[in-house]
Amino acid sequence: MIPHLISTESGPVLELEQRILEAQPAIERWFRLEWMEHSPPFYASVDLRNGGFKLAPVDTNLFPGGWNNLSDEMLPLAVQAAMAAIEKICPEAKGLLLIPEKHTRNTFYLENLAKLTQIFHQAGLKVHVGTVDDTITEPKHVQLPNGSELLLEPLVRSKRRLGTKDFDPCTILLNNDLSSGVPTNLAGLYEQYVLPPLQAGWTVRRKSTHFKSYDDVIKRFAKLIGVDPWMLNPYFTQCGNIDFQERQGENCLADAVDTVLAKVRKKYKEYGIHEKPFVAVKADAGTYGMGVMMVHDASEMKDLNRKTRNKMSVVKEGMEVRDVIIQEGIPSIERLQEAVCEPVVYMMDRYVVGGFYRVHADRGPSENLNSPGMHFVPLAFDEQFNVTHPEAKPGTNGPNRFYMYGVIARLALVAASYELERTDPEAETV
Amino acid sequence: MIPHLISTESGPVLELEQRILEAQPAIERWFRLEWMEHSPPFYASVDLRNGGFKLAPVDTNLFPGGWNNLSDEMLPLAVQAAMAAIEKICPEAKGLLLIPEKHTRNTFYLENLAKLTQIFHQAGLKVHVGTVDDTITEPKHVQLPNGSELLLEPLVRSKRRLGTKDFDPCTILLNNDLSSGVPTNLAGLYEQYVLPPLQAGWTVRRKSTHFKSYDDVIKRFAKLIGVDPWMLNPYFTQCGNIDFQERQGENCLADAVDTVLAKVRKKYKEYGIHEKPFVAVKADAGTYGMGVMMVHDASEMKDLNRKTRNKMSVVKEGMEVRDVIIQEGIPSIERLQEAVCEPVVYMMDRYVVGGFYRVHADRGPSENLNSPGMHFVPLAFDEQFNVTHPEAKPGTNGPNRFYMYGVIARLALVAASYELERTDPEAETV
Repeated sequence: MIPHLISTESGPVLELEQRILEAQPAIERWFRLEWMEHSPPFYASVDLRNGGFKLAPVDTNLFPGGWNNLSDEMLPLAVQAAMAAIEKICPEAKGLLLIPEKHTRNTFYLENLAKLTQIFHQAGLKVHVGTVDDTITEPKHVQLPNGSELLLEPLVRSKRRLGTKDFDPCTILLNNDLSSGVPTNLAGLYEQYVLPPLQAGWTVRRKSTHFKSYDDVIKRFAKLIGVDPWMLNPYFTQCGNIDFQERQGENCLADAVDTVLAKVRKKYKEYGIHEKPFVAVKADAGTYGMGVMMVHDASEMKDLNRKTRNKMSVVKEGMEVRDVIIQEGIPSIERLQEAVCEPVVYMMDRYVVGGFYRVHADRGPSENLNSPGMHFVPLAFDEQFNVTHPEAKPGTNGPNRFYMYGVIARLALVAASYELERTDPEAETV
Repeated sequence: MIPHLISTESGPVLELEQRILEAQPAIERWFRLEWMEHSPPFYASVDLRNGGFKLAPVDTNLFPGGWNNLSDEMLPLAVQAAMAAIEKICPEAKGLLLIPEKHTRNTFYLENLAKLTQIFHQAGLKVHVGTVDDTITEPKHVQLPNGSELLLEPLVRSKRRLGTKDFDPCTILLNNDLSSGVPTNLAGLYEQYVLPPLQAGWTVRRKSTHFKSYDDVIKRFAKLIGVDPWMLNPYFTQCGNIDFQERQGENCLADAVDTVLAKVRKKYKEYGIHEKPFVAVKADAGTYGMGVMMVHDASEMKDLNRKTRNKMSVVKEGMEVRDVIIQEGIPSIERLQEAVCEPVVYMMDRYVVGGFYRVHADRGPSENLNSPGMHFVPLAFDEQFNVTHPEAKPGTNGPNRFYMYGVIARLALVAASYELERTDPEAETV
């Protein structure tokens, strides 16, 4: 089952699909050349929004959970991509230490870990899961609902290396986004590969830096396929030094909302789009769908009530919000039965390996779907996203749509690669 | 549907399966290290024989046809592998010239070309099919039974480059095994990548060179997983200067058959195998299943009748047989319904991307299945060969069996890589 588009008769995204299919060899070559110059992040997932009149990433996750939501049919692609990734980074590796998030009681998340463990085992690595959770002081077997088992082990740190008991891996893979800072265990590891690099964690990372890089990527890509960059790129701006509790920075926020809405309104007019513009106000270092509000008018940023201020001031693991990104919102035109949904595309190394739809029956097309009550529907396997059917009518063919989604997600991946280069503490300054 | 094994209760290959599954991370690492030192052939297919007491490649094709016999579900893996292959060899490539075999009236073969064209188009290359068939003097559209169309074009050679009209590719992919020699069109192309290299063609290539390389590979691999190398490797020897028509070299052949049979008999005794040993006598540069006879006793090599001498003396495209390989035969224990079958594994770059069974209802377990009357059954997609189930009982699980087949096929791929290095005319001699 693939979600239907509420309008499939015409519209810019259908033309975009056509254009992307026609340019497929040129697009793939463009990516090849990008990856000659830049290293892809080890893995990533990208949330997309298809508004019918535009299609763009709205969030790029460099520590993707949710691998358990991919269909089993996608597993061989993920294994093959993992092989390619390992081969490039550390072909001599025997073992991989996977460091998860702390919330060890969420069985969905544990199934995600089991799936990642399986992928890297099949790709040829011995995988141990070592947790930064101090309450786990000895190996702990956890039964998963699907009948499988996961072993969580305490980390063992020596002066120069990190592992678990009797396990000294060559590579450390973080599935922990470092929202609450870099654990001391992870500091000063110069002999092991730590992937993704520490600056990908939310202690350092900012959505606004990502979308600045995405601007650069899209400027060039839009030229390649001959479209208005705005079709693929949400406007955004940012505010620093915000304190929602103390009502500090409200003017900056209101101005920012005004600025973005004005630009969007102009574009809507240019293209004859009869939607009500809105923006997403998000914690610049936030994740898990936390610290997000949708705003239709600058006045909403003044006199925020206590509940909203509480919601916006603190994100995952109690991290306080200081920096905020104000991003053009894109109403989703995709529906699964009656529920609004948005695609999430998963990548390993430079390859799209699968994806699913985030579906929320109780949210409108202009709301944040990443909130309690959401569920996930794997992209059906027969919708092979790298095997297109150029002869099909735009908007009617699953693989064609998913190929387009894979292209846009990979543009965000290229942006993430630029971003990690820019924020690399060891990069040479020119 | 996967073929059943006529004996699944016990047997060395079931133990082998177990051992290979247990060693999966070590095996994958072993391959990673091999591919650090050696380049995989661009693509290959390998015929395997599962005898229950041993499992080995019996033929390695470096110009695989039959891509049309893979299931559509495997296509995304092939596309991803093709992307990896192109990226390494010529990331800047825009176009690929595919040079097929001459026999343009075989619609199965044309469907193979259409499938290859599709794979490389999806991987991001503009593909043209340029034929060495002199009778095609202008572009020719061919309708295929599945409704698709293929365009065959005459080659256009300039002083330094080869292409088709208005198409000047960076890379030339041969799907023509050069049995009748290297076409003049292909000589002296120093500005374009020609893949596989010309020495992979049957003008230069010898099965015996391949299996010598395979000996080297297996010696080390068998040590890694702790098995007798013979389990994975058919004995062979060779005779040169043969002329079947003139009855020249019959003594060499008879002696060779005796030698191999004696070695096999000894192994059968060692392992208590109650089969009748046999050898395959094959043209050392033969393909398409031509120039092959199965022999159970050295005396059969004397006084060959005219029909057999005719069959053995000439192979594909009229090439005369001078060199002969005498290879231990392996009786197949695999059956699809009642028909004997053997797996054929397809690889692109270093990756297994699919496979099928060659099935022949009118042949016995010790006969050559690659002969008129054979048909092909794709490996079912739900039998994912890179996702194993170590907990399953050996011999009962499709993915586990196919993973093992993929490992053995990749050992032949490593051997082919060694072989191409050894026969590289531009290699530095040490």
